Amino acid sequence: MIILMKKSATEAEIQAVIDKIRKAGNEPHVDKGISTLIGVRGDTTRLEENEFMLEGVDQVKRVSSKYKEVSREFHQQNSKIKVGDVTVGGGKPVIMAGPCAVETREQLLESARGVKAAGAQILRGGAFKPRTSPYAFQGLGEEGLKFLAETRKEVKIPIVTEIMNIGQMDLFAKYDIDCYQVGARNMQNFDMLKELGKIKKAVLLKRGPSATIEEFLLSAEYIMSFGNPRVILCERGIRTFETAYRNVLDLTAVALVKNLSHLPIIADPSHATGVKKLIPPMSRASLAAGADGLLIEAHINPKTALCDASQQLTIKEFQDLMGQLKDLM
Amino acid sequence: MIILMKKSATEAEIQAVIDKIRKAGNEPHVDKGISTLIGVRGDTTRLEENEFMLEGVDQVKRVSSKYKEVSREFHQQNSKIKVGDVTVGGGKPVIMAGPCAVETREQLLESARGVKAAGAQILRGGAFKPRTSPYAFQGLGEEGLKFLAETRKEVKIPIVTEIMNIGQMDLFAKYDIDCYQVGARNMQNFDMLKELGKIKKAVLLKRGPSATIEEFLLSAEYIMSFGNPRVILCERGIRTFETAYRNVLDLTAVALVKNLSHLPIIADPSHATGVKKLIPPMSRASLAAGADGLLIEAHINPKTALCDASQQLTIKEFQDLMGQLKDLM
Amino acid sequence: MIILMKKSATEAEIQAVIDKIRKAGNEPHVDKGISTLIGVRGDTTRLEENEFMLEGVDQVKRVSSKYKEVSREFHQQNSKIKVGDVTVGGGKPVIMAGPCAVETREQLLESARGVKAAGAQILRGGAFKPRTSPYAFQGLGEEGLKFLAETRKEVKIPIVTEIMNIGQMDLFAKYDIDCYQVGARNMQNFDMLKELGKIKKAVLLKRGPSATIEEFLLSAEYIMSFGNPRVILCERGIRTFETAYRNVLDLTAVALVKNLSHLPIIADPSHATGVKKLIPPMSRASLAAGADGLLIEAHINPKTALCDASQQLTIKEFQDLMGQLKDLM
Amino acid sequence: MIILMKKSATEAEIQAVIDKIRKAGNEPHVDKGISTLIGVRGDTTRLEENEFMLEGVDQVKRVSSKYKEVSREFHQQNSKIKVGDVTVGGGKPVIMAGPCAVETREQLLESARGVKAAGAQILRGGAFKPRTSPYAFQGLGEEGLKFLAETRKEVKIPIVTEIMNIGQMDLFAKYDIDCYQVGARNMQNFDMLKELGKIKKAVLLKRGPSATIEEFLLSAEYIMSFGNPRVILCERGIRTFETAYRNVLDLTAVALVKNLSHLPIIADPSHATGVKKLIPPMSRASLAAGADGLLIEAHINPKTALCDASQQLTIKEFQDLMGQLKDLM
Repeated sequence: MIILMKKSATEAEIQAVIDKIRKAGNEPHVDKGISTLIGVRGDTTRLEENEFMLEGVDQVKRVSSKYKEVSREFHQQNSKIKVGDVTVGGGKPVIMAGPCAVETREQLLESARGVKAAGAQILRGGAFKPRTSPYAFQGLGEEGLKFLAETRKEVKIPIVTEIMNIGQMDLFAKYDIDCYQVGARNMQNFDMLKELGKIKKAVLLKRGPSATIEEFLLSAEYIMSFGNPRVILCERGIRTFETAYRNVLDLTAVALVKNLSHLPIIADPSHATGVKKLIPPMSRASLAAGADGLLIEAHINPKTALCDASQQLTIKEFQDLMGQLKDLM
Repeated sequence: MIILMKKSATEAEIQAVIDKIRKAGNEPHVDKGISTLIGVRGDTTRLEENEFMLEGVDQVKRVSSKYKEVSREFHQQNSKIKVGDVTVGGGKPVIMAGPCAVETREQLLESARGVKAAGAQILRGGAFKPRTSPYAFQGLGEEGLKFLAETRKEVKIPIVTEIMNIGQMDLFAKYDIDCYQVGARNMQNFDMLKELGKIKKAVLLKRGPSATIEEFLLSAEYIMSFGNPRVILCERGIRTFETAYRNVLDLTAVALVKNLSHLPIIADPSHATGVKKLIPPMSRASLAAGADGLLIEAHINPKTALCDASQQLTIKEFQDLMGQLKDLM
Repeated sequence: MIILMKKSATEAEIQAVIDKIRKAGNEPHVDKGISTLIGVRGDTTRLEENEFMLEGVDQVKRVSSKYKEVSREFHQQNSKIKVGDVTVGGGKPVIMAGPCAVETREQLLESARGVKAAGAQILRGGAFKPRTSPYAFQGLGEEGLKFLAETRKEVKIPIVTEIMNIGQMDLFAKYDIDCYQVGARNMQNFDMLKELGKIKKAVLLKRGPSATIEEFLLSAEYIMSFGNPRVILCERGIRTFETAYRNVLDLTAVALVKNLSHLPIIADPSHATGVKKLIPPMSRASLAAGADGLLIEAHINPKTALCDASQQLTIKEFQDLMGQLKDLM
Repeated sequence: MIILMKKSATEAEIQAVIDKIRKAGNEPHVDKGISTLIGVRGDTTRLEENEFMLEGVDQVKRVSSKYKEVSREFHQQNSKIKVGDVTVGGGKPVIMAGPCAVETREQLLESARGVKAAGAQILRGGAFKPRTSPYAFQGLGEEGLKFLAETRKEVKIPIVTEIMNIGQMDLFAKYDIDCYQVGARNMQNFDMLKELGKIKKAVLLKRGPSATIEEFLLSAEYIMSFGNPRVILCERGIRTFETAYRNVLDLTAVALVKNLSHLPIIADPSHATGVKKLIPPMSRASLAAGADGLLIEAHINPKTALCDASQQLTIKEFQDLMGQLKDLM
């Protein structure tokens, strides 16, 4: 339920609405724009719209979507999410780059320096790697987190890395990870989403390869409804019949999410395409469609990479890419 | 790597091969059929085929698929998996039935009696429910497990129920759950699969709605490679463009999996179709395609069900269904 | 619009309704079951329900689906379609078999004798072949039709073969083809569907690989609304992300179509799977799901076949298949 | 087969290769870039590579893709296709706009003036409309073509309109249509593609909603191999599980086709999304991905439109869109 105040509403009138919401056992969410809008959190099914038509109230309306806190009806301005000292969703696209997996201290450090120099603002790198086969490289684990934290300090760049299960929450806290990435396969790992709703760090939530927009936003709603509004969405390609590239980057989803939600959304052309030469055009297309940033894989020596060798750019190629994006940033 | 012994091979020759495998730091998997076949577990990339051409050996070959222990090349006979005292994969189809969610002690007990009387051999019922929306009924939790254990004792029927995260492993052990169900959304929750590889209970692994057969079998391989061979696969429908039913039950997958793997595979026409009237024909089709069993939702009063009301059969409808399946069982 | 007469309605009352329909510029479709049901063809948007509440009328209702003549609401009994002297939809499944393409007179003749002896009732064989590549074998053309007609005479078996464009209508008439097959790629070749609505022969309409059930039935509606009720539907697999087999045979579609429409529907496991060993289980599953027949590719020497070599059964394999289907026919 | 001449090759040497190709019963396709490249048309399976290693020849290689004339290996420079006096594929994106269907002479004329004034270079409008339902508006037919031809003359703008079957070829010739559009449902209407291979007009070939890139390019190969190189490709969205918009505009396909083929490719965000507000961001994204143009539906009064009312822009909205695209053109 959303309560829209008149432009002329006084502070006292606003406070009266807030008090009434609390008395009903719900929580208010106040969004001050041109006129104040007060979202009602918690179970609203037993509330009557007309009970809230107090002085200064213009309209009371039900949220039409299944999600609430995630919805732009509920919160009209774009949300700005802090990752370290970088703002995602603030208007200017943010580039997150780095290797698919953290392999060695040197590899990470050199990659971080390279991508930062080229213009990346956030460093990515996986310490825990979800792999389809049990026989594939599963990541360095805690050591990877340590290298990430050390590199952050040396290169002065915030870090984003993937969390695979609730049991890793303590480790992520120990290394003070700036942004917790939820992989596509975990988009509906609801128990983990609930835990991520209790932290005070940014969460990068990737869309599952066959998740609908509604399911995607409902997963974000899990995190927000448990108390953490710091959600960054990420479109990373959907699974289709086409086999010429790994997935189809669904930029219509990006454009639609910008309409439906106040949350920032970025795109991941590296994972989506799986093919180097398609990354520059799809990066450009993502920004043109309205994405708030990009997630790009770049490695000091892709040929020796322990995962996704064919889609990782060299540092030089990443620099070129940044040059090609200039007019869209 | 698979070592095929000659029919004439002696026990001593077989033992010599086993010893050589162990010496190389690998583990043997002995499968005695008409002639003995010895699978080699662990990393085999550094082994040479001809080193194993000992006396009595007919052929040494590499497994052609990415999975190994799951493969029929590795283990030729059908695996028979025990759920309580019921055998799945033993030739005769096994019907697992019960409500979508455990709601009350009475509801579960009555449902269990009804489905058992009609011919079901295993009781299903969810204590923990993965729900797309954070605002939907999330299951009774531990209380549900307790009701399941009590019902098992009273009705004398083994139980299968869904596990949603590693943190629930202890609870499942406490109530001695007979079969741990891995939901479609968790098919690639790799850390949980690893833990399920360490228990001595059956695991019912559902195919993700957009998982390929290879990914599905690789997820089973996670469980087997960590030591638990008691895997039952379950086809529950794939996500497509069609909106007239929830999912498309992919029975070609059932037929193909019977070729590629020795593991039993059952079908879930209730979740796949989401529509009552389609359950009987799709149940028949599943058995005709070679499924080793069915997972069917039946409830004492579907209209009041807390989830999936439209696809749960009444006990009477379930009895009718069992009648329609007789010629295929 | 459908007018349901009371059980007690007299012939005169029925005639009065028919007259009124005609006077309104529409055409009646009379379906005599336990009580008579009169469908109203043509534009019914300008008609008022209550104008038709004449003596003897029980109910007047609007058809809820977008299609009308195809709908089971409009015509309750199963339609029985004649192909030569064979009835499709009459309760007992009908097997249509033969080579993918007509190659030589001898190949066709021998194939026809083989499949008929094994129990097939209708001969299939393509004279015009739609091929993805312009460089692939495009069929014998008219010569193929001639061979089909000659074989029909010699072996005494009706024939079904694919029509690719309106320009071939005369040729099909010249050789008096018993059943005109519309390929999956032509399911929405609307101009051709209209022409097929004007003939007095059976039409075998294949579902497009990404057509919804509604689109499929609307294509059948094109044929019926132009005057030809002799439509046999065919499910031949839908396109998905899975690459282990060509398409996913959607048997839920078969089960649903039996509910929504009175038209017979058969399945094509040969084209759907593209893999020989999957044809027997999927043939069984199709019949168990309620299919009114099967379309099977069988060739005297699949290895030399000019198309789809990997999915054509030998005559011996086709005999075995027929044996495996006995309990479901 | 492709024959790459040395940079130093003389005209006589080039001619010798051409002569040899003709003598072998094939046709040469000469492409003069930095060094001359000669494609060999027709059946090349019986030719030996080394027979063509004449004086001045650097390399002889087989084309690796299934298509040939469409391939960038065969013809390296971008093809420029004339539609009337407008060039598509010449570097600067070309906007084609107009109503979904031609409804009246005035509607078309006014729409044409509006879109031309806003910057559109080609007028689109359907005279023959492929409709899923036989009960939907099927287009004005020949009268629509007449209005298009008259409008072209009055407004001085070339026209593109859809051809639905071979029988319409004469009508299209009569009105001298500048560009024949092949709709998505007809992408594999092979007999029509062959006929379009014999004309001297541009063909706008739309990708089927579930066609792979390879199938799409092979359909273009049909047209080219029958003699017409004037093919413009069009990405119009693929069918997926998502229901929040009509189709998913697959811009990765646009980026990949630019790599694989020399043919121009445009995008159709109107049909793909089916939602007005998504057209501007997806138009921008299309151009950023490298599309050579856009196909946009604009109508003088979308509310009264006889088809696709919800996705047609007003002339004013189309002007705004053109403003938003300026930096990408």
